[in-house]
Amino acid sequence: MSEPIDTLWLDEEANEVKYIDQTKLPNELVVKSTINLDEMYRAIEKLEVRGAPAIGVFAALSMYVIAANITAQTLGDYVKEYIRCSNHLETARPTAVNLSWALGEMIKELNRFTNNRFDCSLHSKSLDSIELDDTLRDSITYVLKKKALTIWENNINECKAIGENGLRFIHDGDGILTHCNAGRLATVRYGTATAPIYLSHEKGMNIKVFCDETRPLLQGARLTAYELMESGIDTTLQCDNMVASLMASGQINSVFVGCDRIASNGDVANKIGTSGVAIIARHYGIPVYVCGPTSSIDMSIATGEDIVIEQRNGSEVTKMWYNSEMSHKNVKVYNPAFDVTSHELITAIITEKGVAWPDYKSGLETLMGQVDSIRRE
Amino acid sequence: MSEPIDTLWLDEEANEVKYIDQTKLPNELVVKSTINLDEMYRAIEKLEVRGAPAIGVFAALSMYVIAANITAQTLGDYVKEYIRCSNHLETARPTAVNLSWALGEMIKELNRFTNNRFDCSLHSKSLDSIELDDTLRDSITYVLKKKALTIWENNINECKAIGENGLRFIHDGDGILTHCNAGRLATVRYGTATAPIYLSHEKGMNIKVFCDETRPLLQGARLTAYELMESGIDTTLQCDNMVASLMASGQINSVFVGCDRIASNGDVANKIGTSGVAIIARHYGIPVYVCGPTSSIDMSIATGEDIVIEQRNGSEVTKMWYNSEMSHKNVKVYNPAFDVTSHELITAIITEKGVAWPDYKSGLETLMGQVDSIRRE
Repeated sequence: MSEPIDTLWLDEEANEVKYIDQTKLPNELVVKSTINLDEMYRAIEKLEVRGAPAIGVFAALSMYVIAANITAQTLGDYVKEYIRCSNHLETARPTAVNLSWALGEMIKELNRFTNNRFDCSLHSKSLDSIELDDTLRDSITYVLKKKALTIWENNINECKAIGENGLRFIHDGDGILTHCNAGRLATVRYGTATAPIYLSHEKGMNIKVFCDETRPLLQGARLTAYELMESGIDTTLQCDNMVASLMASGQINSVFVGCDRIASNGDVANKIGTSGVAIIARHYGIPVYVCGPTSSIDMSIATGEDIVIEQRNGSEVTKMWYNSEMSHKNVKVYNPAFDVTSHELITAIITEKGVAWPDYKSGLETLMGQVDSIRRE
Repeated sequence: MSEPIDTLWLDEEANEVKYIDQTKLPNELVVKSTINLDEMYRAIEKLEVRGAPAIGVFAALSMYVIAANITAQTLGDYVKEYIRCSNHLETARPTAVNLSWALGEMIKELNRFTNNRFDCSLHSKSLDSIELDDTLRDSITYVLKKKALTIWENNINECKAIGENGLRFIHDGDGILTHCNAGRLATVRYGTATAPIYLSHEKGMNIKVFCDETRPLLQGARLTAYELMESGIDTTLQCDNMVASLMASGQINSVFVGCDRIASNGDVANKIGTSGVAIIARHYGIPVYVCGPTSSIDMSIATGEDIVIEQRNGSEVTKMWYNSEMSHKNVKVYNPAFDVTSHELITAIITEKGVAWPDYKSGLETLMGQVDSIRRE
């Protein structure tokens, strides 16, 4: 079996963004190419590209390709068009932090360029007087391309580092349970919770991975089980309510999950169901590892109680199954998107900078100190 | 809101069996009538009538209606036709214990009649010489009708007794979580796990019931939430993986579940997911009550480990959602129908004869002693 392709990448020859259309999974592997802003917008909006890190990288690559195709006579017009496109793309999923972050990084790069070269910021009127000749255009697209590719590569390296830091917790023959999709399809390559799994598989370890289907939207069934199978990993799918039965059967040695946000005490917000898995794992004495980049750690939050949990529409639960309603038409639905897993249930938190252990407060502070010192460099 | 109708009953005027077609729920309440063996067979086979107790009662009422319509010249021919129909109906769901039990009870009644009246058993050749006149026919149908109605009524009384015995565990304002359908639709009226809920509602208590949707076949969403809503009870539906979040939110005061089989040490086999709910409930200090008739108690089984768990087809998990596959086409699926909840996680077992507490061994023996003494009467 050949190595699976990345979730998205820059085709440097055609100067196009290429990406797996995730709405076609798990039934078809469709790779789309785009140089068009409307298509890029739709790709994000319609979840053809999904997963916070993947969306950010997609936006960065997209803005480079768009920039390379802007036709303008002056640098001022060029910048205006760039900002217009970037602002439009940002509205494709308003709450996606990585989307604004990546678009912001690209704009900062453009700003740095105009500042360094012309000693004026992006919104300066004097840019209007600068003619956009081919040399200038090439210089701009060069720095934007370099920045976009750095964002793309950093995502791969960050995931790989999570994998390397988590590798020590996987042993040959292990059965590993995972919940939702914190997999390669949510990133460029490797994923977060799946990174130690892919690396152990690359090293030739025999592992079996058990994927919770993850109601209501089935990311575990549709995406995680799919991508693990495509990588040739021994994969089993189960309903969320089968976790206790699986653990009782002795087939599970460890749990690896991703995270949406980590509080300073180590409480973890992640896809709904994670905390139940952690409670059941504790009952059976099975370790629970949370994997995520340090950018998920929010030291300003004291505990998980301070994390506001989004309640989503009940129709996600009642209307996907049949064409008609799958319950009483007037029934109330409890449908939180996330839950909070207490730090007491978490064995270790694995990041690209290293592993934090309980008590998490000091461990996370140490990791964030490393991040800060790098930022200061 | 008017009181909901029973799951099935005998229309004594038309001499027909009437039943709710459960395959039409939750979108339509369709009541069907039948006097026809093929229709009765299909009703069981196609799950129009489902739930072990309900199937048993349906079979008893059906055999009375069939008996009333047998045209035969001799008692021998009558009995042969009765046995033929009964044997055929039994094959509609071969593993349903209540189906064979109820059909057996009806045959025993017919046998008792021929024995008492003619001093010969059902399979005696001498029955062939007895002419089936209207008086004899009326006598037979009278005893069969009485027996069928007794089975029907006993089911209601048994469920109601479970409800009365469980009522002490429900308090005004409680939030109650339930899993799968151990509801009125699985019985004639009241259900098992739902019996204390319906009785507390009848007594005017304000309760809120939270139903796990219960993957893979969604009995909680389709049936339990439906029947509770139809009874005017405050009902909320959630996915199975939302239980920990719900319990952490403080909305749940107790868990009520049914059971398929109870071992002599109090271990309980019930719908997959029950043991996970019980583990999470224990984590949050929430009591777990198991409700079932004493016929579910199997004193010959030492512990839950001796209960063989049926593994069902993986397509139940992967194929219901979309018309196409909802995961990788070759993925393995773990799909056990039941799990075993350790007696250590169960607060009390509620039966029609009373409540058993830990240590369950002696408690269950006492309850079964009462059953035995009744059987000896």
